[in-house]
Amino acid sequence: MAGLDRDTIWEFFQHLADIAARETLPRFRAPLAIDNKDSAGGFDPVTQADKAAEAALRAAITARFPAHGIQGEEEADKRGTSVWSWIIDPIDGTRSFVSGMPTWGTLVGLLEDGVPRYGMMSQPFVGDCFIGGGGHADLFSHGQRTALRCRGDRALDAATLFSTTPDMFAPGAELDAFNALSKAVRLTRFGADCYGYCLLAAGHVDLVVEANLGFYDVAPLIPIIEAAGGVVTDWSGKPMRSGGRALAAASGALHAAALKYLRTVA
Amino acid sequence: MAGLDRDTIWEFFQHLADIAARETLPRFRAPLAIDNKDSAGGFDPVTQADKAAEAALRAAITARFPAHGIQGEEEADKRGTSVWSWIIDPIDGTRSFVSGMPTWGTLVGLLEDGVPRYGMMSQPFVGDCFIGGGGHADLFSHGQRTALRCRGDRALDAATLFSTTPDMFAPGAELDAFNALSKAVRLTRFGADCYGYCLLAAGHVDLVVEANLGFYDVAPLIPIIEAAGGVVTDWSGKPMRSGGRALAAASGALHAAALKYLRTVA
Repeated sequence: MAGLDRDTIWEFFQHLADIAARETLPRFRAPLAIDNKDSAGGFDPVTQADKAAEAALRAAITARFPAHGIQGEEEADKRGTSVWSWIIDPIDGTRSFVSGMPTWGTLVGLLEDGVPRYGMMSQPFVGDCFIGGGGHADLFSHGQRTALRCRGDRALDAATLFSTTPDMFAPGAELDAFNALSKAVRLTRFGADCYGYCLLAAGHVDLVVEANLGFYDVAPLIPIIEAAGGVVTDWSGKPMRSGGRALAAASGALHAAALKYLRTVA
Repeated sequence: MAGLDRDTIWEFFQHLADIAARETLPRFRAPLAIDNKDSAGGFDPVTQADKAAEAALRAAITARFPAHGIQGEEEADKRGTSVWSWIIDPIDGTRSFVSGMPTWGTLVGLLEDGVPRYGMMSQPFVGDCFIGGGGHADLFSHGQRTALRCRGDRALDAATLFSTTPDMFAPGAELDAFNALSKAVRLTRFGADCYGYCLLAAGHVDLVVEANLGFYDVAPLIPIIEAAGGVVTDWSGKPMRSGGRALAAASGALHAAALKYLRTVA
């Protein structure tokens, strides 16, 4: 980012991860999650954690970069006067959060004229924080820093495919296309939420295919994958500049092979 | 267990969790997991971790309880001269393990004349260890010990259902029964591996439905759920004394409601 080196950006992302964790962790697996999840007032712990984490992230970003815009899941967009803007999903994977599964994540992305340039995924209960952009991506985990690199050597029939749930695909052409691709790969796994994208960047997973996404669900993950050598587009092969259907692949060749199954829908 | 109080059993389970973690953690997300996963020789990291963890667990159990039998996934059964025997799944969720997802677990159960009486699930990367039996179950996590209790208050149409993957059900009657139940609940989630059962015991999840299980996949989890107030049977409503199809529920009423959908197959 203009005027900031990588270390400064990385440190700020880690600062944001800490700030969000202060709001999310105390409410994760909290007893109230059992009693009040269905309350009509919206004061259940996951909604509280979502709102509190987004508010804290917005305050930290505004304090440091007052000219930057901010868009998030919970509050109205803040328009900025800079080419740079932030995109926030305080808890990606709220269904995992309410189920006690430590696979949700806090996502923060930094866009330049709407194009995702830097991004972060933090899972504070596990202790994983993925950060990437500008040609480099790292995993900070359990005291270690590891550079991320996609494995680009798998053919489609040897690939592992992740997706949050088959229910995210609309019955008909969309679900049919996903199922056809799922049959063509070696292994399909569900339930990973944002972890699927990050583990693709880390070289453990080859494809992530999803649909019905908000831009905040995927924009922060795109720079991490691209910096690790992977490719993310929509199902027509175009760069993602909004939500919708996503295809992430560990290599250009794998992306092209998978896209053949999905392009029928786009 | 005869001659041992709960604290002693709990400490021994935690000792076993530590022993297994020494073999599994160094191989989790290891670079070799990428290169050698498909090797014909079986020397991939997950197989290494599986074999090494089971061997270490068997050695620790034999040293402490030489008369007890031991059965595990990787080695031949050891016959004992006691009514007590151990059952081991060193890495439940090997597909999560090779994908870098921290949702696999080390499972150890203690059986009396083949009936599961005590059990443990440890996920050392996350730092969760669930132990239960004899009317009490605990989660040891991040320095805290929490007594486990199922939430028994949900009707079927408000329930959260977990399962590892829809692919575990045989097409036809088995898959149809699962799908019918899945449509009757509020939320179905995939990908949890052994975590689904443990989060049911912890009061975050209401149902777990699976098929095609080994006994070692489920036997260690049964005492944890039963001690937390839940019910585990096969799809005909009988206690599980071998692998196959499992139904775990947070209450007897919920179990009965779910069983109506599954009994058609049994």
